[in-house]
Amino acid sequence: MSLNLTQKIIKEHLIYGDLTPGGEIGLRIDQTLTQDATGTMAYLQWEAMGLPRVKTDLSVSYVDHNTLQMGFKNPDDHKYLRSVAARYGIVFSPAGTGICHQLHLENFAVPGATLIGSDSHTPTAGGVGSLAMGAGGLSVALAMAGEPYVINMPRVVRVYLEGSLKGHAGAKDIILFILSQLTVKGGTGKVMEYCGPGIEDLSIPERATITNMGAELGATTSIFPADELTRQFFKTMDRESDFRALNADPGADYDEEIKIDLSKIQPMAARPHMPDLSVNISEIAGLKVDQVAIGSCTNSSYSDLKISALILKNKKVHSDTDLMISPGSKQVLKMLSRESLLSDMLDSGARLLECSCGPCIGMGGSPISNGVSARTFNRNFEGRSGTQDAQVYLVSPVTAAHCAVDGCFTSPDTWGDPLPRPQLPDKVPSIRDLFVFPGDGTDVEIYRGPNIVPLPEFDPLPQRLELPVAIKCGDNISTDHILPGGAEVTALRSNIPAISEYIFSRVDPDFTRRIKNAGQGIILGGDNYGQGSSREHAALGPRFLGVRIVLVKSFARIHRANLVNFGILPLTLAKPQDYDLIEKDEIISLDTETLVPGQQTTISTSSGNTIEVKNDLTAGELDIIRAGGLLNFVKNKAEKN
Amino acid sequence: MSLNLTQKIIKEHLIYGDLTPGGEIGLRIDQTLTQDATGTMAYLQWEAMGLPRVKTDLSVSYVDHNTLQMGFKNPDDHKYLRSVAARYGIVFSPAGTGICHQLHLENFAVPGATLIGSDSHTPTAGGVGSLAMGAGGLSVALAMAGEPYVINMPRVVRVYLEGSLKGHAGAKDIILFILSQLTVKGGTGKVMEYCGPGIEDLSIPERATITNMGAELGATTSIFPADELTRQFFKTMDRESDFRALNADPGADYDEEIKIDLSKIQPMAARPHMPDLSVNISEIAGLKVDQVAIGSCTNSSYSDLKISALILKNKKVHSDTDLMISPGSKQVLKMLSRESLLSDMLDSGARLLECSCGPCIGMGGSPISNGVSARTFNRNFEGRSGTQDAQVYLVSPVTAAHCAVDGCFTSPDTWGDPLPRPQLPDKVPSIRDLFVFPGDGTDVEIYRGPNIVPLPEFDPLPQRLELPVAIKCGDNISTDHILPGGAEVTALRSNIPAISEYIFSRVDPDFTRRIKNAGQGIILGGDNYGQGSSREHAALGPRFLGVRIVLVKSFARIHRANLVNFGILPLTLAKPQDYDLIEKDEIISLDTETLVPGQQTTISTSSGNTIEVKNDLTAGELDIIRAGGLLNFVKNKAEKN
Repeated sequence: MSLNLTQKIIKEHLIYGDLTPGGEIGLRIDQTLTQDATGTMAYLQWEAMGLPRVKTDLSVSYVDHNTLQMGFKNPDDHKYLRSVAARYGIVFSPAGTGICHQLHLENFAVPGATLIGSDSHTPTAGGVGSLAMGAGGLSVALAMAGEPYVINMPRVVRVYLEGSLKGHAGAKDIILFILSQLTVKGGTGKVMEYCGPGIEDLSIPERATITNMGAELGATTSIFPADELTRQFFKTMDRESDFRALNADPGADYDEEIKIDLSKIQPMAARPHMPDLSVNISEIAGLKVDQVAIGSCTNSSYSDLKISALILKNKKVHSDTDLMISPGSKQVLKMLSRESLLSDMLDSGARLLECSCGPCIGMGGSPISNGVSARTFNRNFEGRSGTQDAQVYLVSPVTAAHCAVDGCFTSPDTWGDPLPRPQLPDKVPSIRDLFVFPGDGTDVEIYRGPNIVPLPEFDPLPQRLELPVAIKCGDNISTDHILPGGAEVTALRSNIPAISEYIFSRVDPDFTRRIKNAGQGIILGGDNYGQGSSREHAALGPRFLGVRIVLVKSFARIHRANLVNFGILPLTLAKPQDYDLIEKDEIISLDTETLVPGQQTTISTSSGNTIEVKNDLTAGELDIIRAGGLLNFVKNKAEKN
Repeated sequence: MSLNLTQKIIKEHLIYGDLTPGGEIGLRIDQTLTQDATGTMAYLQWEAMGLPRVKTDLSVSYVDHNTLQMGFKNPDDHKYLRSVAARYGIVFSPAGTGICHQLHLENFAVPGATLIGSDSHTPTAGGVGSLAMGAGGLSVALAMAGEPYVINMPRVVRVYLEGSLKGHAGAKDIILFILSQLTVKGGTGKVMEYCGPGIEDLSIPERATITNMGAELGATTSIFPADELTRQFFKTMDRESDFRALNADPGADYDEEIKIDLSKIQPMAARPHMPDLSVNISEIAGLKVDQVAIGSCTNSSYSDLKISALILKNKKVHSDTDLMISPGSKQVLKMLSRESLLSDMLDSGARLLECSCGPCIGMGGSPISNGVSARTFNRNFEGRSGTQDAQVYLVSPVTAAHCAVDGCFTSPDTWGDPLPRPQLPDKVPSIRDLFVFPGDGTDVEIYRGPNIVPLPEFDPLPQRLELPVAIKCGDNISTDHILPGGAEVTALRSNIPAISEYIFSRVDPDFTRRIKNAGQGIILGGDNYGQGSSREHAALGPRFLGVRIVLVKSFARIHRANLVNFGILPLTLAKPQDYDLIEKDEIISLDTETLVPGQQTTISTSSGNTIEVKNDLTAGELDIIRAGGLLNFVKNKAEKN
């Protein structure tokens, strides 16, 4: 049977399941990565499993998110991460070394390897043919423990590229175009597998830009073959031995196919507030730009920054515009410095920020009130920049640099002759010795600042639940509603008791007081409960506060999985209209022994109603919930063996 | 009569008064500078005066403090400052260009000129023979209006330097040594005037380090002559025409004299939590260092960073230590890049932050909990780093670099042969075109984000006051007690209504509610009321809330002046024990017409007491208070003319 590239890698790593799209599969994971904002929790979960050493080929712990360090919490987290890495055999990348995905691509990604990372842009490594997926922190912890990573077998989309980029268009414009065609839901349950003669026009950093922002399609991941250009990239990075040629079999089948003629791609911008709202730049020519930001895991490579510098050279940033540049890694910064490109940037008036995620995740660099910001980043959700009413446009580095000089969007027709897209030189300076490679580690003491609080232990599911309705919260509640983001709350990601104080704080400031008084509770919600970001804390926090059931009209997929992982029963109303029969504060009773996977059961309410509820749990998932969560489940299993 | 250098410059700028120490003098001010944290208020005050154009030779508005931009407030402030500068004839230095004092020294400071700046480290420019003083924002606004700057004629201390630096000692160690001898109060009411053969051993950046940190002596300012080395510095900076040789007359008199033999200076560190607690490094050898920070207006010159880089070259930052470097200006960063010194720093593992104040003012870069941080900065007050229990040591760049590599303080005996102290090359890259020089400006519209709130207008002093005692707050209340610092509150410096909500918030969270209900009030305090930082907002906020009298046992000098400037009556109890006769919430009555400058009068209390109170106001000060503050006073005067 002819396999496509995705199937090939999955087949090589299959622990259980088969290649039928939609079926559950368990994958052996070769590599993991974490970043600091999600990593502290991932490693607290790892520690709770009590294993001596990670079982992956490679696990890397990067610090790139919370690098501003307003107070002790972030630096304490960094030191905790450093000590955990040394203790358990994990490579550590200190703050300021660079952005996890850029660094992983340059230093560690391997064709044909499976990689999961506790960051949604982990698919960046797909640029060199790695099957790289974003995952929750607990999944990463389990992968480090040698457990399979469980997903549904994705449908594979053949993205056939032909022609070559023309004019001022770049890789970012390709993915913005694809987003405009497929929308932010277009990749759900799918792997985007790139092929065709057009890929030969794309350098590895350009491919990585495309696979990176495939995350915005909702795709499981995106991947390019490992070809001759990939081999050359590994040679340049001085790790040719990591290279392995890899491609789909001739005549391989795909579940879907789209074709893109690269020569038709125009410079584009995604308008506020969604990455798929793309328009050609010429359509927004004249729009004043208050801020330009170049960087992020999408566009902070040497090539991205070099072309920006070449456009800025001998010009000045417009007096109404502020330009910030965050290089993706110290390797990139060193190359910019070596070629005087850094000086060209500084001479233009650009601001140089630390090599980190920075403004992309709202860690500083916020625009002015109601300001227009053109950013080479991957997300332009409302408020993500830190300025609630800012208008963020996602663009390529070329477009960004022209915005900076012109002070507004201008038609690419006015940009003059296109510059050649910069290629990596044959040799680049190594920064490999800036990573901390672990030694034996058994004597390493784990550092815990006052903000590093061990994971709470959760009890198994009781046979009978009698729970007050702690909140009745309507439709479309996102994980941002359940637990807000922002620097203040994000700094508490390693401290479940402290971060739990913020659960529902923007929706119902009295929620935590009420549920703490009651000691336990049930959340009653409407449709699409738990949409948005994958943050585990939106399940962990409620569980810590005593939530045992979330009963809703319907769930968003990832949050439902997180509820299961942390031992909360996800139930849906058999009749959605029964939502109206249940009031806040009344008591809901359920005999949990009556639960059967995938079937209906009844709950009773203190106002005298009997209500049909459904679960769509597998037998395994119900076992996990009965155990009090996945960590308990894994520990119980280990004790039995 | 033979004059010393200080007297010469003062004499040239004297508008009234004479050279008798202690007497009030009014000085013509040639230059002003502001930074963004104090500048927004200074320019709101300037705007309130309604003048069309600044009257100084040069005024510069720098953005270097609040550059992290967590939300819209800081960038809105920056844009406000930019528009004010363009409108009123002020040079603007955008965020990321560098630290105000480093930039001013490199680009604008002039020997023999008077300079006041709304930042306490303005004396940095004394390194090239400018008479440069820190001042409140209102004083800077008045100087821009052509009004004299009023101080008491300082005593002049001859600091006679002989010998030359030996071993690993540097300029920072000289000022740390002086601080250890004179203490943080040793310079009060004095100018430190450096002379003697030893000054020929000191480059301009080294002299600037010494005058900069003279601020920690409490000195009015510090100054070096403009000599041949100064001329060479101006030539290097490509502004030889700004140079003018300037020195004390032969045989000039001084009020005091100290002598220092530079060859005896050892590398030193100021221990927590005061800049005068200096010890020789060898005394603290072995103390583990968790963080090292190099930069700040004290030690971020090319020479400072070059010697750091040379020590770091081919070495690695210790695995238990985090090293952050903030260059003082883009000029410095460009030179580091050009000479590959930046690469040497990055290769060592150092983190490169933006060219700004950064960690020095607690804007990021906080140490770990209870961490030891060795910093090339100027202040190590408790909590200033952002980590309340951190232990901050102030050191030279040489000591800092060795700490970074060794992971602890080590004896200088182990540091090997001293490197030659780096000198500026003959030519440096200009960054002059990164400043925004003002044009005509009449058409410029002032940008005001929602956080830029015009200065409230204050009414004149009523003839009769009947005020409730809004707070009774004991001895040693600092301006930090009255108005906390920190990023959250500091971001509101341009918004008096909003920042006033924080008045006494750490001492008495109910204070603002009470006084807003009452509409007005009196503050009752003990000894040394208003000590600490010079922040004007500790007077402006109470005034906005309705405080008309502060009645205490004794005042700290600068805060008393701020109260006068904003129309609050500063009164002291004739009998300190009467403090016990007055209770919170009772009503104090005063006929303000009975006030005579420098004399006693009586107040009555609603509990039936009659209490003697004193004022030490000059006739002019009482006129200012009667007008409702200095701004009203100046406007009234302008209207009469």
